[in-house]
Amino acid sequence: MTTRIAVIGATGYTALELLKILARHPDAEVIIATSRLEDKLSIQDVHPALTNSFDIPLTQLDVETIGSEVDFVFSCLPHAASANTVRDLMRGGVKVVDFSADYRLNDVAVYEKWYGVEHPDRERLGSVPYGLPELFRDDIRDANLVANPGCYPTSAILALTPLLQEKLISHRDIIVNSMSGVSGAGRNTNAAFQYCMANESVKAYGVGTHRHAPEISQYCTSAAGEICEVLFTPHLVPMHRGIFTTCYVRPSEGVSASDAMSALRDAYREEQFVRVVNHPVETKNVANTNYCDLAVFENGDRLVVVSAIDNLIKGAAGAAVQNFNLMCGYEEATALL
Amino acid sequence: MTTRIAVIGATGYTALELLKILARHPDAEVIIATSRLEDKLSIQDVHPALTNSFDIPLTQLDVETIGSEVDFVFSCLPHAASANTVRDLMRGGVKVVDFSADYRLNDVAVYEKWYGVEHPDRERLGSVPYGLPELFRDDIRDANLVANPGCYPTSAILALTPLLQEKLISHRDIIVNSMSGVSGAGRNTNAAFQYCMANESVKAYGVGTHRHAPEISQYCTSAAGEICEVLFTPHLVPMHRGIFTTCYVRPSEGVSASDAMSALRDAYREEQFVRVVNHPVETKNVANTNYCDLAVFENGDRLVVVSAIDNLIKGAAGAAVQNFNLMCGYEEATALL
Amino acid sequence: MTTRIAVIGATGYTALELLKILARHPDAEVIIATSRLEDKLSIQDVHPALTNSFDIPLTQLDVETIGSEVDFVFSCLPHAASANTVRDLMRGGVKVVDFSADYRLNDVAVYEKWYGVEHPDRERLGSVPYGLPELFRDDIRDANLVANPGCYPTSAILALTPLLQEKLISHRDIIVNSMSGVSGAGRNTNAAFQYCMANESVKAYGVGTHRHAPEISQYCTSAAGEICEVLFTPHLVPMHRGIFTTCYVRPSEGVSASDAMSALRDAYREEQFVRVVNHPVETKNVANTNYCDLAVFENGDRLVVVSAIDNLIKGAAGAAVQNFNLMCGYEEATALL
Amino acid sequence: MTTRIAVIGATGYTALELLKILARHPDAEVIIATSRLEDKLSIQDVHPALTNSFDIPLTQLDVETIGSEVDFVFSCLPHAASANTVRDLMRGGVKVVDFSADYRLNDVAVYEKWYGVEHPDRERLGSVPYGLPELFRDDIRDANLVANPGCYPTSAILALTPLLQEKLISHRDIIVNSMSGVSGAGRNTNAAFQYCMANESVKAYGVGTHRHAPEISQYCTSAAGEICEVLFTPHLVPMHRGIFTTCYVRPSEGVSASDAMSALRDAYREEQFVRVVNHPVETKNVANTNYCDLAVFENGDRLVVVSAIDNLIKGAAGAAVQNFNLMCGYEEATALL
Repeated sequence: MTTRIAVIGATGYTALELLKILARHPDAEVIIATSRLEDKLSIQDVHPALTNSFDIPLTQLDVETIGSEVDFVFSCLPHAASANTVRDLMRGGVKVVDFSADYRLNDVAVYEKWYGVEHPDRERLGSVPYGLPELFRDDIRDANLVANPGCYPTSAILALTPLLQEKLISHRDIIVNSMSGVSGAGRNTNAAFQYCMANESVKAYGVGTHRHAPEISQYCTSAAGEICEVLFTPHLVPMHRGIFTTCYVRPSEGVSASDAMSALRDAYREEQFVRVVNHPVETKNVANTNYCDLAVFENGDRLVVVSAIDNLIKGAAGAAVQNFNLMCGYEEATALL
Repeated sequence: MTTRIAVIGATGYTALELLKILARHPDAEVIIATSRLEDKLSIQDVHPALTNSFDIPLTQLDVETIGSEVDFVFSCLPHAASANTVRDLMRGGVKVVDFSADYRLNDVAVYEKWYGVEHPDRERLGSVPYGLPELFRDDIRDANLVANPGCYPTSAILALTPLLQEKLISHRDIIVNSMSGVSGAGRNTNAAFQYCMANESVKAYGVGTHRHAPEISQYCTSAAGEICEVLFTPHLVPMHRGIFTTCYVRPSEGVSASDAMSALRDAYREEQFVRVVNHPVETKNVANTNYCDLAVFENGDRLVVVSAIDNLIKGAAGAAVQNFNLMCGYEEATALL
Repeated sequence: MTTRIAVIGATGYTALELLKILARHPDAEVIIATSRLEDKLSIQDVHPALTNSFDIPLTQLDVETIGSEVDFVFSCLPHAASANTVRDLMRGGVKVVDFSADYRLNDVAVYEKWYGVEHPDRERLGSVPYGLPELFRDDIRDANLVANPGCYPTSAILALTPLLQEKLISHRDIIVNSMSGVSGAGRNTNAAFQYCMANESVKAYGVGTHRHAPEISQYCTSAAGEICEVLFTPHLVPMHRGIFTTCYVRPSEGVSASDAMSALRDAYREEQFVRVVNHPVETKNVANTNYCDLAVFENGDRLVVVSAIDNLIKGAAGAAVQNFNLMCGYEEATALL
Repeated sequence: MTTRIAVIGATGYTALELLKILARHPDAEVIIATSRLEDKLSIQDVHPALTNSFDIPLTQLDVETIGSEVDFVFSCLPHAASANTVRDLMRGGVKVVDFSADYRLNDVAVYEKWYGVEHPDRERLGSVPYGLPELFRDDIRDANLVANPGCYPTSAILALTPLLQEKLISHRDIIVNSMSGVSGAGRNTNAAFQYCMANESVKAYGVGTHRHAPEISQYCTSAAGEICEVLFTPHLVPMHRGIFTTCYVRPSEGVSASDAMSALRDAYREEQFVRVVNHPVETKNVANTNYCDLAVFENGDRLVVVSAIDNLIKGAAGAAVQNFNLMCGYEEATALL
């Protein structure tokens, strides 16, 4: 049975990936695509890669129309704007996957500290499932609203959760060092993301201030059952897509890399989209896929857990469709393999 | 006064950069260039970028000829092969900068463990200055043989030394996370360095096994006056040149990022090639230069010290010419600005 | 109904793309994958991106086993070696798509001049359909052997054929200027395709000598009904995948760019994989797809016809699966959208 | 003797390259740098790569101050704005190299047709030397104002001029097909030049409408002594810097590629910055240099003349300093090798 869909904020890179995946989905029909800025254009004017796949006009966001015409909404709005709209949409009975950070953090105070705005829908915080099906599948299946995870957190949380749950590593002194391709910045006109500024260059950014830090810490804390203050540092590297995350953790006594690999293998044995691999983890192997590749190494007195995803797919649009499939009762991998 | 020069192992990327710099040097005359493999070709056949700059034939290495015809040798041979040759060259009275790792480690046992070969010139180990003029200028000036530093160690040691010397950071639990452009692998025909394998991809490699780890540890230990076991993890990123290093260190009590920045500024106040900067450190700003850019940030309970160099220049050929200038009595920055 | 498949020469970039597409195909089952060199490895050892998709061992090519176990063969062998094997396979009754150039040229003399070897299966030349379904669909549907087109020829022939057929352009003085990403060279260990040699560089190669020139000329000649000697020049550009072709042609009197666009639109109106577009043609819009994008411009007294494909998909593996679908009676676009 | 310099419009990529070169020039002292937008910042705020090289504040353009304080101006303003300012500066007696297109075309009508504005300094058109020293050295030496050539025209005109002058090729039916790295677009915030739009993609642009077409035609016409209507098509390729130009020309009867190579060699025998090479012409060999590499091939009934430059150096800032050196009586190659 077909699900009628609206994509809100349809002009970004993530929305493009989402629309490509949905175009392959046998039961998904996108009938509304909105844009604050590009009204009167068609979706193909903004995303010429979609030519021949499908085309609809871009329209202004209208909550009532959406409520009456669609069953499901993917919200690609910025934080705060998104919760503001999602709150209204929920009243109309549609199901929603929210790409913004608005429903990822459980604690209003943490949200308001890191995002610097008042949360427009405080009551819901803490009761919205986090859209990592590998960890929260049952909650997602039953939910009307799911918070799609951040790209960096996806790469880190999938790597660390089983190890924390099994107490194979300490919850203290976890360092998450990540590298992202430039699409992570979205369709951003900031000079830093011009080709000649980003190409052939690497830099750290947001050191100590990146908003994905509390998100990683929150889910590591849940997994460990102890407060984790994860130290997170992202870097920009010259490629289109991909995140590579290197986690420096302290093994519990006697725990080897091989023990940690086994624990990851056990945890993800039934998962279609998490691969614990013996060959080198590299972003090229997961590019344009919904996979997350993981491996563990020993280095001095630490374990080094490495993780690779496509930030636009498993880190955004792919996870969103995985959640959509669960929420609508489709086979979880539909359109994702 | 002109110095007559031989470049041994002249076909690699590092040798190309070296030859470009020497072509701009008013007092350097390269008269011999050797290659094991490319005998009978000219240097321009191998490095067409040098066309019009200068040209000489590539010849087989002949220690006696070199001893009688040149004053100075840059040895770009692989480890073990290099010390083998350098030992013989030194008897002939020429001065040498050695690009290999052969004279960087002071301890024969450490060398033989990490490099897996017997050292061909054990007696000299421990008495050869390490070619970082910012730290060992006087020793270099007086030396006949200098060990040119590894590229990763250069980026890490310049970042950490003043902080360790001033006890602003702990000598324990130092994590050095580095990213290198592909030229760091040299002119390597391994499939991993083909364009389609390296482009649009990031990976960690040599985790726990990279030979630059003991080199970083040794010079951090010297600086700290305490044994440092630095944990080092390199990554390959899709660009030609550049190293970006992110060091996670523990500040001594009360030490802020700003304190650490001040200490770096003080340490390098007179240095032409180390810049402690307030703008973002990025490899693009040091590409094709002999600069090392540094900055310090706070992140949780750590300081994060970041460092960027061009691996082929400050991490190899530029440092070598800096050493050459010191050893021959030229102005240190000649041909390097 | 499932088709059992062998992929011969399964270790290259094209084979990887083919295997990815076939993994999504509901009716294709790859049961044999051969490699001359990588015997005893599994397919995932060579293509780690396939982990979890499917895995089979790499075996040595054995024509009899293939003949008895599979229905369909994709031959990814080099020229001459391919025809040699295909000839034997055809006796066994399997259907074959041949990726090599062996069955693309109709004239033995032209083949032997450009490829410098005796053709191992001369009798078949001239009777094997050229695998561009947009032009030769009926022949492909009925064939047991199809010659998969070259990547550059695909981009040029789709752009020029309707214009030549309709006599909108002259058959004389056609210049085809192409740019290809590095994957066009295949899994090639030649130094020219190392990352540091190919990145941040552009060059022309094979000027006047590239073997795709006679292939383009032959199909332009067929379309025009007059002998076309197309002048072809390929260039290597620093990207993984994609071909952009710029054709300089002489319009017949009174023919405008807009007339030519209309003719292309008419010719490809029913085609799912050819798009005649008003927005800029760029390889990014066709990357990882089976599309060919086309447009026409006026420039001085010429028309400029531009064309973009993904060299690994529409220029190789995608076209091959399109042919497979036709030859086996599946919906032509299966696994390709 | 030192020349005091102002750089007008100092924030672009070209200005950055210019400032890097001038920082190495023993007799050039940049004392004024202006910017319409970035007033109150220092030059290092905008170009952090210049840290330690030199630093001055960015100021608003003030023609009188410039006239009284400097001897030489590099104008990096956009077309029309540049001539407007240059006209006033010339009254003050300073010498000027103008990077804009304002003084490159001799015919006011051609200028006004292609640039769509009234020319602010019509009287000077036709008497300002074109800053290609290889062709117009004597005029440049005597001039107070020089029109710095366009990047594409530099690559094409150096390739074609000797062949046209010697009548080795026809002046008719010349096709110039060029590819440029993204820095050719300048510091451009247009979405098309964002990393994720330009990376891994190739496109043609400005087909039939690019303003460098009349510039190329004008200087080919001068060289041939006959009206040349050169057909020019530029393409954008995913790299930072470099232009590769492929010229399709008709040889005069009996003229081979080798004859054409000889003619180029003869023409440029004394030139330091033009190399006629036997190895493949590729942009990597000229990147970060002031060289132009040339070669000629046969292809069908055409000759194909290929040319590579660094668009920011020989195509802009390097040529400008070459002109500066000539106009001020310095050795022409100063700071350029």
